[in-house]
Amino acid sequence: MAPHVYVEDLKHHVGQEVTLKGWLYNMAGKGKLYFLQIRDGSGIVQAVVSKQEVAEDVFARVGTLKQETSVIVTGTVREDKRSTLGVEVGLKDLQILQLPTADFPISPKDHGTAFLMSQRHLWLRSKRQVAVLRVRHEIIKQIRHYFDSHGFTLMDAPIFTPNAVEGTTTLFPVKYFDDTAFLTQSGQLYGEAGAMALGRIYTFGPTFRAEKSKTRRHLTEFWMVEPEVAFMDLAGDMDLAEDFLVSVVQGVLANRRPELEILERDIAKLERVQKPFPRIRYEEAIEILKKKGKETKFGDDFGADEETAISEEFDRPIMIHRYPAVIKSFYMKRDPEDARLALALDVIAPEGYGEIIGGSQREDDLAVLESRIAEHNLPKEPFEWYLDLRRYGSVPHAGFGLGVERTVQWICGLHHVRETIPFPRLMGKIEP
Amino acid sequence: MAPHVYVEDLKHHVGQEVTLKGWLYNMAGKGKLYFLQIRDGSGIVQAVVSKQEVAEDVFARVGTLKQETSVIVTGTVREDKRSTLGVEVGLKDLQILQLPTADFPISPKDHGTAFLMSQRHLWLRSKRQVAVLRVRHEIIKQIRHYFDSHGFTLMDAPIFTPNAVEGTTTLFPVKYFDDTAFLTQSGQLYGEAGAMALGRIYTFGPTFRAEKSKTRRHLTEFWMVEPEVAFMDLAGDMDLAEDFLVSVVQGVLANRRPELEILERDIAKLERVQKPFPRIRYEEAIEILKKKGKETKFGDDFGADEETAISEEFDRPIMIHRYPAVIKSFYMKRDPEDARLALALDVIAPEGYGEIIGGSQREDDLAVLESRIAEHNLPKEPFEWYLDLRRYGSVPHAGFGLGVERTVQWICGLHHVRETIPFPRLMGKIEP
Repeated sequence: MAPHVYVEDLKHHVGQEVTLKGWLYNMAGKGKLYFLQIRDGSGIVQAVVSKQEVAEDVFARVGTLKQETSVIVTGTVREDKRSTLGVEVGLKDLQILQLPTADFPISPKDHGTAFLMSQRHLWLRSKRQVAVLRVRHEIIKQIRHYFDSHGFTLMDAPIFTPNAVEGTTTLFPVKYFDDTAFLTQSGQLYGEAGAMALGRIYTFGPTFRAEKSKTRRHLTEFWMVEPEVAFMDLAGDMDLAEDFLVSVVQGVLANRRPELEILERDIAKLERVQKPFPRIRYEEAIEILKKKGKETKFGDDFGADEETAISEEFDRPIMIHRYPAVIKSFYMKRDPEDARLALALDVIAPEGYGEIIGGSQREDDLAVLESRIAEHNLPKEPFEWYLDLRRYGSVPHAGFGLGVERTVQWICGLHHVRETIPFPRLMGKIEP
Repeated sequence: MAPHVYVEDLKHHVGQEVTLKGWLYNMAGKGKLYFLQIRDGSGIVQAVVSKQEVAEDVFARVGTLKQETSVIVTGTVREDKRSTLGVEVGLKDLQILQLPTADFPISPKDHGTAFLMSQRHLWLRSKRQVAVLRVRHEIIKQIRHYFDSHGFTLMDAPIFTPNAVEGTTTLFPVKYFDDTAFLTQSGQLYGEAGAMALGRIYTFGPTFRAEKSKTRRHLTEFWMVEPEVAFMDLAGDMDLAEDFLVSVVQGVLANRRPELEILERDIAKLERVQKPFPRIRYEEAIEILKKKGKETKFGDDFGADEETAISEEFDRPIMIHRYPAVIKSFYMKRDPEDARLALALDVIAPEGYGEIIGGSQREDDLAVLESRIAEHNLPKEPFEWYLDLRRYGSVPHAGFGLGVERTVQWICGLHHVRETIPFPRLMGKIEP
């Protein structure tokens, strides 16, 4: 049998006979000519079946094909300038591995999202979903590449944690033998311990929030990357976030342009993601909102509406810093120039895609941190190990967290976050 | 102030004045000369303090230093052939950021492991633990690099799952709003759906087993990478596992030799991890065990003792294939030449480090898979989506799972798996 070649590699085999292994994605034609769209996960290629050029039983077999039939095809690779691949295949033989036992549930016609979500295991085979998953993979590669090539050590934070970082209303408790554990909401506290050991670290793993909201931005299970750097302050944190985001977006543009085209993404908008990002203080953001007629005052947190309104004023990600301490976490350091403010940073994606990064410089003074824990009515004992980081050689340090799915949503230009992860988990949705 | 340079980069700054930011790891000397060991996460460098060459207050300050004091040091980089770094620093100035509020709990003397585990957040700062974490990072980089450069797409499997793959006795249930979810034990079933969409995929994430055993090989939370490939059979699975493992081990040797030396790893044994790996049938493994005086018979599963005994016979990883179907999972395809056998594969690490890979060719026939689900007394409904993969264009496919922590344990040569992950989770251990 001719050598097995993946669709993405066919362009290197023009004029040769090859074997393709895949599935029938679509077909057209009748009479003496069929045009088969064969997908194998690496791409989709057109295979042309001419009655004159194949055996009678092969031609008859082609006539029986249904969507998603698994097939082994042999044929000759020919140049085809009209195809984005640059090639098509002149079919010589076709074997059927399995004819579907019923019509494939997802036909080229439109389906409702609830139905598609219930068929997620099959929906993944569609051209758009494949493109999203490839961009997701590329984003994750670019994220890791950035940190790996900038002196960071990966430090996997635990999933089972004995205490909560971001408050207790959205926790998933788990019976852990005779104890109760909680699924992590952030690797940050552990990342701080890592930064004291390794200088520059990043954690990268799934995190969990029992969000009772059904919005197009929330998942209960989502991936987060969290760098943490010893001896870095808020200004350094902003520099890092900016350099990192530019690197990720430009890396995706360099390697996944065809997928973004399938998704009909406006690529010019992504090309604009270049330094410098606007850096505005929370109080400046409030002014922007007021000018746009949004009722806001110092102390208000920004929701999706406010984030969208602010993002409309700029053509790239916006860094908003120095939020009121009252709306931020206990571990954030206060601004030495204005004690009402936390040295916090949020990065808002352009085009209304909302917050993608949250970060801060951390409080490094033992006594101050102890008093913050008390002010926030948190029990002290579970944080003793975290306080140790301020007892034994405390240093200024900072970091941030980037939500992978929201980043995929933004870069792919998707309306709903549920398409950004292979098997999304939402309130009321754990299947398949 | 002189430019901030990380210890690992000092060799590029010989003759220059630099600033180091780090912690005091150790110190020696008195009278007119001190030798400080300064660590900054990227390495440890010696800073020499000569009474004649520094200001009086600086020399006095050095005398007050305690282990893990956070410091900012300026000095001149000098060649030093005795150092593994090739350099030392002639100290000119030293600022103390924070003097520890008490003696650092982990002194250079030996401590019991229970104590060290309770201080894991501080223990991570030790030279050995830093070396382990750097090797762990390198292993993960090499794993991803292998798949990323061989046409695989990363496909994150969900953590919340509605059903169990490997049996129900070691599951962690979680209240999921009004439902019950289980923490994933393997991404495989989802990976199979991914392989039908993307051809070649890998899942990589944390997995969970509520193991009630306290052995040196078990964690309740561990990371697993699971490739899955459409149109691949058991022989292809073995080729993939072999090529992959060689690539990972040789990549670590190329980039992390200094860390393996810190761990006193016998590197010659890792250099022997080259193709071909021995491939022995389960029944041959039984014969080996019998010759070594171990009572075993067809149908027995191999435990740690058997794995160690088999590994003693070879100098590299061993691939054992075609296990009795009765001791393997329902989704494994039977050997067409012997229906008692499953087309299963385990890879046993050398030197007694045990099983690191488990894999198989999957059953791709709908009717056979349905009868296996019934035979295993599994409910059919939760597997309907999985059965769909056999209804709509079923193809032969195979894959495997590699446990990251056991691989780190083997490559680093560690007695206990708890040192292979930053914050290990075991039965009765979720802190810090």
